Amino acid sequence: MQRLSSYVQGAWHAGTENSETLYDPTTEEAIAECSTAGIDFGACVRYAREVGGPALRAMTFAERGKLLKALSGAIHEHREELIEIGVTNGGNTRGDAKFDIDGATGTLAAYAHYAKSLGDRKFLSDGDGEQIGRTARFHAQHVRVPRHGVAVHINAFNFPSWGMMEKLACSILAGVPVIEKPGTPTAWLAWRVAQITVESGILPEGSFQFLCGKTGDLLDHLGGQDCMAFTGSARTGALLKGREALVKNNVRVNVEADSLNAAVLAPDVDASSDTYGVFLSNVVTDMTQKTGQKCTAVRRILVPSDRVDEVRTDLVAELARIQVGDPRDKANRMGPLSSKAQFDDVRAGIERLAAVGDVACGGPQPLTDKGYFVAPTLIVAKDGEAEIIHSDEVFGPVSTIVPYDGDAASAAAIVRKGGGGLVCSAYSNDSDWLETYVLEAAPWHGRIWTCSDRVAEQTLPPGMVLPNLVHGGPGRAGGGEELGAARGLEFYTQRTALQGFKGFVEKAFGAK
Amino acid sequence: MQRLSSYVQGAWHAGTENSETLYDPTTEEAIAECSTAGIDFGACVRYAREVGGPALRAMTFAERGKLLKALSGAIHEHREELIEIGVTNGGNTRGDAKFDIDGATGTLAAYAHYAKSLGDRKFLSDGDGEQIGRTARFHAQHVRVPRHGVAVHINAFNFPSWGMMEKLACSILAGVPVIEKPGTPTAWLAWRVAQITVESGILPEGSFQFLCGKTGDLLDHLGGQDCMAFTGSARTGALLKGREALVKNNVRVNVEADSLNAAVLAPDVDASSDTYGVFLSNVVTDMTQKTGQKCTAVRRILVPSDRVDEVRTDLVAELARIQVGDPRDKANRMGPLSSKAQFDDVRAGIERLAAVGDVACGGPQPLTDKGYFVAPTLIVAKDGEAEIIHSDEVFGPVSTIVPYDGDAASAAAIVRKGGGGLVCSAYSNDSDWLETYVLEAAPWHGRIWTCSDRVAEQTLPPGMVLPNLVHGGPGRAGGGEELGAARGLEFYTQRTALQGFKGFVEKAFGAK
Repeated sequence: MQRLSSYVQGAWHAGTENSETLYDPTTEEAIAECSTAGIDFGACVRYAREVGGPALRAMTFAERGKLLKALSGAIHEHREELIEIGVTNGGNTRGDAKFDIDGATGTLAAYAHYAKSLGDRKFLSDGDGEQIGRTARFHAQHVRVPRHGVAVHINAFNFPSWGMMEKLACSILAGVPVIEKPGTPTAWLAWRVAQITVESGILPEGSFQFLCGKTGDLLDHLGGQDCMAFTGSARTGALLKGREALVKNNVRVNVEADSLNAAVLAPDVDASSDTYGVFLSNVVTDMTQKTGQKCTAVRRILVPSDRVDEVRTDLVAELARIQVGDPRDKANRMGPLSSKAQFDDVRAGIERLAAVGDVACGGPQPLTDKGYFVAPTLIVAKDGEAEIIHSDEVFGPVSTIVPYDGDAASAAAIVRKGGGGLVCSAYSNDSDWLETYVLEAAPWHGRIWTCSDRVAEQTLPPGMVLPNLVHGGPGRAGGGEELGAARGLEFYTQRTALQGFKGFVEKAFGAK
Repeated sequence: MQRLSSYVQGAWHAGTENSETLYDPTTEEAIAECSTAGIDFGACVRYAREVGGPALRAMTFAERGKLLKALSGAIHEHREELIEIGVTNGGNTRGDAKFDIDGATGTLAAYAHYAKSLGDRKFLSDGDGEQIGRTARFHAQHVRVPRHGVAVHINAFNFPSWGMMEKLACSILAGVPVIEKPGTPTAWLAWRVAQITVESGILPEGSFQFLCGKTGDLLDHLGGQDCMAFTGSARTGALLKGREALVKNNVRVNVEADSLNAAVLAPDVDASSDTYGVFLSNVVTDMTQKTGQKCTAVRRILVPSDRVDEVRTDLVAELARIQVGDPRDKANRMGPLSSKAQFDDVRAGIERLAAVGDVACGGPQPLTDKGYFVAPTLIVAKDGEAEIIHSDEVFGPVSTIVPYDGDAASAAAIVRKGGGGLVCSAYSNDSDWLETYVLEAAPWHGRIWTCSDRVAEQTLPPGMVLPNLVHGGPGRAGGGEELGAARGLEFYTQRTALQGFKGFVEKAFGAK
């Protein structure tokens, strides 16, 4: 059995007490264990602040960008080995595992690229300088400087590689050291990536620590220069965010919770159009990629009432082509859910949704005696207003068709019942329809993806998080924001207004 | 006795049960009372969302800017009357009252001015559009749109006029309706400003509500599109921020707490320089303006060890010239503290500070039999490391001289003991010294003000909050951010990434 260790204060530490066990979700075999017993979490926080922070802040953005570029390369070299771990511990198909691993190296490379434009400086200019006195001599300039704290990243189980490196890229580029904590059930992949990171020697000592297992009292050591970014369930997000030490010390918190993302088919899109093909293809990808365990996956499919039967038939036919089984077999296009807990949650969730709809395909029953397999499950809502459809996220290969009247504003009103989402997708060739929909839906979303025939052959799927676009959403989606090129550095920096003699302020801190 | 009412759901409401009493802090006479008993707070929230929000969002930024301009004018017309209320209920000198009232009208006018540059649109572009597909056809653009919620503003007692209108200006310009709640002890001025606002008919129905008294269960009705901005003590800020409904629903929260703002005198500034004169003058202004009840006031004065006696002597001499007494008498330059609670807190705080320092002038004793008067109090720390000096904010005319070794980095290290501040000021003619200080101190501050001889005759005081510069600070200062021209709209808007056909995205949502 593999023992997964933690990297703290410059050394690997393998706790042995109170270990948690990791499983292969295909075979239910125990394959690894981990424990953070014996770690002094307060010391980790101080080590990051006192060793990692100063080392990073001594570098320019351009220099830190080179670290990210090198790290991307180091991880990519181990791609095949990492894919194997994703298959074994995550139940990923090879395609799913690649998506996670290439997402990590791609995001690191993208942030290495953005770093170039931030240049050979140690702070960012925010807007232009301006006169604030009677004459031009008294001057002001806003800057963004790296905060003097540590970034604690509590990552989700579904993207052990991408999730960790996406947060790390922004933090390290901003000049803030990280403590990374993966979701335990799939931590093996994160642990191996952490090993590669440490062994590469690329990141300055103290700028990267890794906790494999429980975080103990870690968060209670955070203060006003520190931050905590969490990706995972809304319930856990709220628990962490409300923690007394974080509230009292005004620790910055970013929560990216899963949400009931919607896909909306406009009435003008007929079945023969390219846009309709993309719609079907994207819904099927979102439902089955990573076995539907994607925070951006489509949970609600809004379809004009008179098209529901047609869409249902087409989606059932497409989903029937997704062969489910052992992800080691390349014929299988969808693997198991990643853990027993997920399996139980998803089966219970399907039963709840089935109570307010018709199960068009799939269902809550296990597909096999061993392993956490369910079938892609499409539900057609009997009552599109049923609250549960808009509030109960079933984090698996499950989605619900919700009928609507075809009006853009009506669609937005239904989508808003979800209380805030990471992304929604809208399919239409009618620009007026799309514009209305976007204006009505935008305040409730971090990202809105639109498709029409003119771009059907080259869109990226809506479920795909891009480093140059913000990722996050209001309300149920957690209220956070990550990525978005340089926007992703805002969380890790302090914006400060500087006032003084123009000759001084402009020379030392002016925009370039 | 004046009864102060609330303006909710389009009508004035004067509760009579469980009234709170307001006093004239000069005479201790009861002068007004207020109660929110009988108000349905959930209905207020719905009214703002359903009536006020749509009305504001139907307007462009330019149109909303005109509302602010008109409101500024309407309030200014009542300036003399408002000054009288500030004197009576706040214990303000006329100068103090003007500062508060002109701060309100000035900030409204400034935001009216910024509105022009935001133009005839209903959303803001955030950065440039960019290609995200294989060809330029698949395109992305970030926008900022008004959120579909209400902004609850819980304001501090010290600036009943400015504090309310500063938050209102950003929110209304962003397109988000407000519910304003003033600090009760000095609410008369806010109430009169609210009356003027309502009577002017300038703001669309539902976009302005006003609660004079307790907020009951108001915050429990807020959801993921709503926000709450609070200015006041760190303790109350943490209580509000940690409230279950706000955490669970991911309500956006901005806290602007008072902080232990520092003024730092560099060793190069000799007593004959203009900069030294500005230093003395600013410290005295910060200590005595508004009787030291200013969130940006200087609480710690860092002075090179060998200059402490000189600075002490000079400040004591300057403070001796500040005549304290009934603010109705124009000879008096400092009035009473605003309430009995403040009076008790400040006296107790002076005693705590006196335990670790020498009282150079002033002290905890009351100056009169009636009224909440204390003298400007300067303390010289015996031990500059004493924790209390850096953590215990005494919110009155009180400041402590803290010796340091003259080194810029040492000064920043001492200032950082405050755990994060709204503003700090640094006085030096040595640009290298200033640059080092700014770099070391910036992550801990929302604003850093510097002065050298070249600008001494035209600086604005560091305690002055400007609409074009951000106001807020990390850690103990609350972790929030307000104002800063268009930056002040970020809190009230949702940033959304839009993806799609360039012809559509750019035409409907492109940067202009």
